[in-house]
Amino acid sequence: MAVPPSTYPRRLLPLFLGLFQGALLLFFALFVTYDEPSAQVEDTSLVANQVYSTFPFFQDIQVMLVVGLGLLLTFLPRYGFSALTHNFLLLNFSVQWALVLQGLLHHFHHGQIHLDLHKLLLSEFAAVTVLISVGAILGRASPCQLLVMATCEIPLYLASEWVIVTCLGVLDVGGTITIHVFSCYFGLGVSKALFRATQQPLHPKETPTTSSDLMSLVGTLILWVFWPSFVAVLCQPGDAQHRAILNTLLAMSASAITTVVASSLLDRDGKLSPGHLQNGSLAGGVAIGVVADMAVPPVAALALGSLSAVLCVLGFRFLTPLLARKLTLHDQCGIHNLHGLPGILGAAASIVAVLVAHKDTSGSHPSQLSPAGGNASEAVEGQGGSRGVGGQALCQAAGLAVAVGASLLAGLLTGSALRLPCLARPPERLCFDDLLYFKIHDQAESPGPDSSAEEGALALKEQV
Amino acid sequence: MAVPPSTYPRRLLPLFLGLFQGALLLFFALFVTYDEPSAQVEDTSLVANQVYSTFPFFQDIQVMLVVGLGLLLTFLPRYGFSALTHNFLLLNFSVQWALVLQGLLHHFHHGQIHLDLHKLLLSEFAAVTVLISVGAILGRASPCQLLVMATCEIPLYLASEWVIVTCLGVLDVGGTITIHVFSCYFGLGVSKALFRATQQPLHPKETPTTSSDLMSLVGTLILWVFWPSFVAVLCQPGDAQHRAILNTLLAMSASAITTVVASSLLDRDGKLSPGHLQNGSLAGGVAIGVVADMAVPPVAALALGSLSAVLCVLGFRFLTPLLARKLTLHDQCGIHNLHGLPGILGAAASIVAVLVAHKDTSGSHPSQLSPAGGNASEAVEGQGGSRGVGGQALCQAAGLAVAVGASLLAGLLTGSALRLPCLARPPERLCFDDLLYFKIHDQAESPGPDSSAEEGALALKEQV
Amino acid sequence: MAVPPSTYPRRLLPLFLGLFQGALLLFFALFVTYDEPSAQVEDTSLVANQVYSTFPFFQDIQVMLVVGLGLLLTFLPRYGFSALTHNFLLLNFSVQWALVLQGLLHHFHHGQIHLDLHKLLLSEFAAVTVLISVGAILGRASPCQLLVMATCEIPLYLASEWVIVTCLGVLDVGGTITIHVFSCYFGLGVSKALFRATQQPLHPKETPTTSSDLMSLVGTLILWVFWPSFVAVLCQPGDAQHRAILNTLLAMSASAITTVVASSLLDRDGKLSPGHLQNGSLAGGVAIGVVADMAVPPVAALALGSLSAVLCVLGFRFLTPLLARKLTLHDQCGIHNLHGLPGILGAAASIVAVLVAHKDTSGSHPSQLSPAGGNASEAVEGQGGSRGVGGQALCQAAGLAVAVGASLLAGLLTGSALRLPCLARPPERLCFDDLLYFKIHDQAESPGPDSSAEEGALALKEQV
Repeated sequence: MAVPPSTYPRRLLPLFLGLFQGALLLFFALFVTYDEPSAQVEDTSLVANQVYSTFPFFQDIQVMLVVGLGLLLTFLPRYGFSALTHNFLLLNFSVQWALVLQGLLHHFHHGQIHLDLHKLLLSEFAAVTVLISVGAILGRASPCQLLVMATCEIPLYLASEWVIVTCLGVLDVGGTITIHVFSCYFGLGVSKALFRATQQPLHPKETPTTSSDLMSLVGTLILWVFWPSFVAVLCQPGDAQHRAILNTLLAMSASAITTVVASSLLDRDGKLSPGHLQNGSLAGGVAIGVVADMAVPPVAALALGSLSAVLCVLGFRFLTPLLARKLTLHDQCGIHNLHGLPGILGAAASIVAVLVAHKDTSGSHPSQLSPAGGNASEAVEGQGGSRGVGGQALCQAAGLAVAVGASLLAGLLTGSALRLPCLARPPERLCFDDLLYFKIHDQAESPGPDSSAEEGALALKEQV
Repeated sequence: MAVPPSTYPRRLLPLFLGLFQGALLLFFALFVTYDEPSAQVEDTSLVANQVYSTFPFFQDIQVMLVVGLGLLLTFLPRYGFSALTHNFLLLNFSVQWALVLQGLLHHFHHGQIHLDLHKLLLSEFAAVTVLISVGAILGRASPCQLLVMATCEIPLYLASEWVIVTCLGVLDVGGTITIHVFSCYFGLGVSKALFRATQQPLHPKETPTTSSDLMSLVGTLILWVFWPSFVAVLCQPGDAQHRAILNTLLAMSASAITTVVASSLLDRDGKLSPGHLQNGSLAGGVAIGVVADMAVPPVAALALGSLSAVLCVLGFRFLTPLLARKLTLHDQCGIHNLHGLPGILGAAASIVAVLVAHKDTSGSHPSQLSPAGGNASEAVEGQGGSRGVGGQALCQAAGLAVAVGASLLAGLLTGSALRLPCLARPPERLCFDDLLYFKIHDQAESPGPDSSAEEGALALKEQV
Repeated sequence: MAVPPSTYPRRLLPLFLGLFQGALLLFFALFVTYDEPSAQVEDTSLVANQVYSTFPFFQDIQVMLVVGLGLLLTFLPRYGFSALTHNFLLLNFSVQWALVLQGLLHHFHHGQIHLDLHKLLLSEFAAVTVLISVGAILGRASPCQLLVMATCEIPLYLASEWVIVTCLGVLDVGGTITIHVFSCYFGLGVSKALFRATQQPLHPKETPTTSSDLMSLVGTLILWVFWPSFVAVLCQPGDAQHRAILNTLLAMSASAITTVVASSLLDRDGKLSPGHLQNGSLAGGVAIGVVADMAVPPVAALALGSLSAVLCVLGFRFLTPLLARKLTLHDQCGIHNLHGLPGILGAAASIVAVLVAHKDTSGSHPSQLSPAGGNASEAVEGQGGSRGVGGQALCQAAGLAVAVGASLLAGLLTGSALRLPCLARPPERLCFDDLLYFKIHDQAESPGPDSSAEEGALALKEQV
């Protein structure tokens, strides 16, 4: 119909992905194997038990990331297909990329990497950071930009996680600091560097409709239901895992109720904002992660859930507009309210928990401090004696500082890289629109005879 | 734009919820702890096994209640957001409230309540009653009214459950009598007392659209898939649980097919009614609960599933309109057809099962009668000898009578309380409309310039 | 409003289903029981463990078939309700029918069939074939036709599966050959025989809308998440199952990325086709099934996933239109691209895997060839020695040939039977329309005053 836009950026996505997939095949062919089959009967039964104990958690997390988070992002009414697909694509890309990097860093023995479900799970955790960070620039970035962001973020996350957990010995079984805080400030850094001082005006396609808000809420509910699996999967089986599940359930329940309270109080007519519900209900899950398996009393989980929901709703109401106005910082999905503020709250709570747990139990149950497990436990058990409780509290604080600082810096650098013109950032006019990326038939609003011409022309203008 | 309605009822919801959440925090701070960490290795492994055996069931039930039931209620096209949110809010509120009451009643030892996953699960079961009862008045009650209803229903359920299971020793592992029958007649009682003799005319926003019916059907399917987990979670591991799963699967499969048969036969053109499908497919799950773990043959499960589906569809076609006309009894979601009739059928089946099981196996396998477990088993094992089979059958009948009678009475009283003007029942004009409670943007039908003025005026009129 | 269409075909569906359900009840009453309760404590614990290890997989598969596949089929915008309901109805019908036939064929001992979860699972696998085959004729066949198709397909599948797995000893733990290839060519045969040489023009209601495409994509994502459970459920616990899960995860991850690459490269503007995404992302899961538990290296799973996605997308772009033009072969959902081509690829890969596994490990680990299990393992262990590796490779090829040949023939015969006028194939004008089968209220396009008259008239014309 119209002159097609220069095809170069259109071909960049398949080129990039195709090369990546080819390189991955080569890497796997050279270095990756499965574990040797277990020779003895007891081993077989052990492997079976591991599968039965991890796999249901793993599936729950997959549902969260693929279906729950995907649907949560469909609140943009004309961008649902993109949100769902890009989320899915980024998850797969990031998991594969994290498998390679983690394999090289941690699991490279005698020229081989032995793949198992646990390593896949750790890569999944790394991929979560990318899916969260995307929220800051959702709708205004091209898939190529998102993939480049993922390419940068995964190694930076692995480095930051290594410093925080292995070097500093921070206890963070649910990834509050290492995943949520890191990815939030990384995403904000990217957004700042990508959009610079441009004020982002409200885009006409940005306003959710009832049905897009409903889909998004369904996504929230799916995330809400399966969140305990995410927090507890890396806990040590037994009491710690049991407690992590209970703490998460309590925190999320308190979040759900408190979100309604806070959202209603902030509105003149007492009406609830869909955005508050979609995010606030999950804030407790973010905050509880870092203390979920510690010896905190149930009331602490409830309080943390309530407080984080309040912070989240207040953030949406006051902080996000303020950051947009004062710092021209654009945060499309409000990830700072869902991941940043509750994450910092959780980190602070972990400092208190470490100090209080010591006071309460000094002498009697010193092991209660870190019954956790996961990859954090060894570090702590080794250093616990020499470090002492004050040291551990300091470490938690240092971990938070590292997560915020490193991610902001890394995000700013990554965001600058995303400004490369070849990455085909969509023109403002075509933002938040599935039609730019998908051959779909739009029912609600017929694109009209000159729409694709205009689209092409705009795309051309952008590139010139 | 217009004079805002008096803000008092607008503030009641956050006030009520906020005070509740605060009181709950206080209660938890004073009385609730986790179990002591298990000191020995065997205990750790035991706790781990308990988590692995209960948690997947628990998650399935959470998906049912939060996502499945939530979506099922979205058949009202302009009320989907409210249905989903209120269901979610009520679940959280009721679970917390049930935790407190159950803790005080059953688990209060040495001034402390020890929280674990099993107790949370029992509270979840209590909360289900509220979510079912809401169906009778969905769309015409304010969130405040629903919360007050939940506040009343939870203790009344706990009392009724205590009488039925602990005192009478009724066998009801899937909650057919204690949960479904109780909550149905409670909801009908509330509806009767709330709307009194007012004939509820068909509201223009009450008619489902294709897309709202589709969402609702997805909810049904989610409930259908996970229903076996709900029925079997409290069964004793091993044969009883295995049989409960199979019985439920058979009953629900028969329900699905029979619903199509019945719905098609009742229509002049042989077309299926969405409402029949959405409810009838689940009727078997309601009916089977009470006999699921008994020694009934597979054909009984199939027959029960078929029969309950027929009852459910006939109820929708004939009984609901009749009750509305003769008794001015309003049942918005048809809970009497999904929970009442199949529940009574299940209770009747349990009487037959008890009598037949005895005849078949007298002498040889007396224990087959109650291989169940859950909280019912102890009561029965203690009383079984002295009571005999006829006694057990009588008990099942008595349990049904208690459930119907107590719930109707309790519902009528509760419904009268809901008429308190301060609870802000929405005016008829604004029923079934998300706009009253949510700041959403309605795409399909623009609210128009004077809509909010009208809304405010109507709200004012209601209060005057 | 108008003269109702002759009621005979309208009554056929409930008649058929009602008779079936009645006969099933009779059959169950006469022949089906549960296993005897396990008398000893160890047995109880064994049963409990079986339930815990199988049931989560079983539930995952139920979600896939009922919710995932159902939603995937809702891409037809005005046929969503039918797609979801017919899928659900066919699943239940086919499972029950397969239970009967499998019971008679395999599990009939002393006049009784002992039902357990494993047998229900095998019936579920049989039912999958029906749900796949339906995709070829979706929207243009009446529910009666679909039920008759299911009635024919289940016994033919059981016969084919018996030949392939039991007689030929084909290794196929994930059902690639026995389920996917069989059901694909069966469906194509039915389509060919049903529509004969009629060119099916594009129906105005056939074009997906954004929202129907979005729902369908959600279905894909649900299938994608739970696919590993489907492939691994029948594997032997331990290493084989662990490897099957990992292989499936890798294959599906590669499929997801490669689909984006292929779909983007095939479009002039680099845009992605929803249909490609909805199907290509799953192609890897189809292909990997047959080798999932073999000793293939991880790179093979990735390569298989990538290749099958490429095949799937190319099939949609070139083969489906070609088959429609040259052979007037109608394939509504493109099942040949999702199940046929990847299935054949998987079968070919299994031949290579058998040959290579032998070369690599001859002498040292001969058992690595078939660590699988399921119902295939015994056959192979028994025949492995006498047959040798070349023989096994030949068997895999023979199995593929049997699956393709038998299913095509069976499909053609079945399709001819579906042309019986009493089965009420909908007239072209009323295809793809929920209004023909459901009492729903269409919001988007009011049916108009003379719509039902027209509908009736057309239905009459069809029958005359």
